[in-house]
Amino acid sequence: MQKDKNAPIGIFDSGIGGLTVVKAVMEALPNEHIIYFGDTARVPYGIKSEKTVKEYALQITDFLMKRNVKMILIACNTVSASAYGAIREHVKDVPVLDVITAGTRATMEFNHSDRRIGVIGTLATIGSEAYERSIHAHDPNIHVFSKACPMLVPLAEEGWTDNEIARKTLRIYLQDLKSKQLDSLILGCTHYPLFKNAIAREMDNPDIHIIDSAVSIAQMARESLKEQHLLRTDPKGKFECFVSDKPQRFQQLAERFLGRKIPQIEIVQL
Amino acid sequence: MQKDKNAPIGIFDSGIGGLTVVKAVMEALPNEHIIYFGDTARVPYGIKSEKTVKEYALQITDFLMKRNVKMILIACNTVSASAYGAIREHVKDVPVLDVITAGTRATMEFNHSDRRIGVIGTLATIGSEAYERSIHAHDPNIHVFSKACPMLVPLAEEGWTDNEIARKTLRIYLQDLKSKQLDSLILGCTHYPLFKNAIAREMDNPDIHIIDSAVSIAQMARESLKEQHLLRTDPKGKFECFVSDKPQRFQQLAERFLGRKIPQIEIVQL
Repeated sequence: MQKDKNAPIGIFDSGIGGLTVVKAVMEALPNEHIIYFGDTARVPYGIKSEKTVKEYALQITDFLMKRNVKMILIACNTVSASAYGAIREHVKDVPVLDVITAGTRATMEFNHSDRRIGVIGTLATIGSEAYERSIHAHDPNIHVFSKACPMLVPLAEEGWTDNEIARKTLRIYLQDLKSKQLDSLILGCTHYPLFKNAIAREMDNPDIHIIDSAVSIAQMARESLKEQHLLRTDPKGKFECFVSDKPQRFQQLAERFLGRKIPQIEIVQL
Repeated sequence: MQKDKNAPIGIFDSGIGGLTVVKAVMEALPNEHIIYFGDTARVPYGIKSEKTVKEYALQITDFLMKRNVKMILIACNTVSASAYGAIREHVKDVPVLDVITAGTRATMEFNHSDRRIGVIGTLATIGSEAYERSIHAHDPNIHVFSKACPMLVPLAEEGWTDNEIARKTLRIYLQDLKSKQLDSLILGCTHYPLFKNAIAREMDNPDIHIIDSAVSIAQMARESLKEQHLLRTDPKGKFECFVSDKPQRFQQLAERFLGRKIPQIEIVQL
């Protein structure tokens, strides 16, 4: 069935980090309606079993499908690594894009000999080796250097993205990667775009490509919608924001990730 | 029914922070057998509803009761605030102690006029105002000053408890409390005893009582067992450690909290 081009794009994450993807999609596709779901009651997914992550991801997918979305963006690295296939199979007539594929594809656009790609992410994402697998599916000869940076999510949630504490933390985490002569560094966590400037300064290499997977998935979404003639042409898309729970300081935090005011956030039980 | 004095003490937490309570109990009561349960698959509890926290806490209580514990220590501030009454009712013939009551009781031992007590904890604990209520139940005239310190849990889990980043973080969080002329400061989170020295240095006041609720609950446990003639007299208690999931770097992390090697950690589904 041909989808309606005025239908919304569904974007989801285990928490609020995925709002950096919403922000990138709003910038790349300002006419599109967007529905976001953040599973704030059950965050973090990284410590949960693959079975549980799949179950939660399919519940959220059903929630978005009931709202007749024309495309689904998985703005969560854990879901991308564990449940992409299950979601894909579950919603056959709607395109599903994920941050890991988007980040990998973005770095494949560059031509370098002896490619050396760095990946930073949470302990769960780095431990899953999902980026390595995704990159090596394109080219098994690429050198991949990974580093878990567990302090960056709490720093982002505290709003400390470019103070002295953030800079010293990045210095410790990026120390090893700086010596690896990387051509690209993938920000493999939806919270990390908030540190993009601080990371670029710390890497101190004007030739390195810093891959923001939020920007990458927004670009992929635009191309995919364009190919399918599903780009919305009327101006000013609406934004609807749903969460499964609203912890303290949520609104303030969400607005920091989105970079703008959120008029209304609705709590729903799945 | 009179309990067996050779029965173990059951201690539980939503994660591994409660191992600081195990450590304090091992020091205060080295002869006691201890069974620990950390709900690492479902941590953090602070973002969950009171109903869910009660349900989880009662599941863990049943797990400990099946192992015939003679006493239960709630080493989790969220469970202490939300589910103490429910647990108490569930296990009528076994004493149940909790960290909030223990921390409050410890500071009530000091006599000062115009009492001014500081409390630091997670966003969830500080937001719940559980310490305020507990302190004001003793004396409504006491001034209570609270401060959420959300970065301290991730810092402890990263092992950064006394480096420059930890010190600068404490400087920011404790700045306001330092001007309040506190007589006591309660460490209202099971992770915070790892920062005890750094916090004492930062507060820079030799007269302030720093209340480590892990030590406080261990003292309460000793008094309670003594009163009931349930102190174990044979030397060298055993320690058994159960968790609901074993995330990356768990063993290393757990040993940092406990301050010693853990021979075996068993994963159980509740």
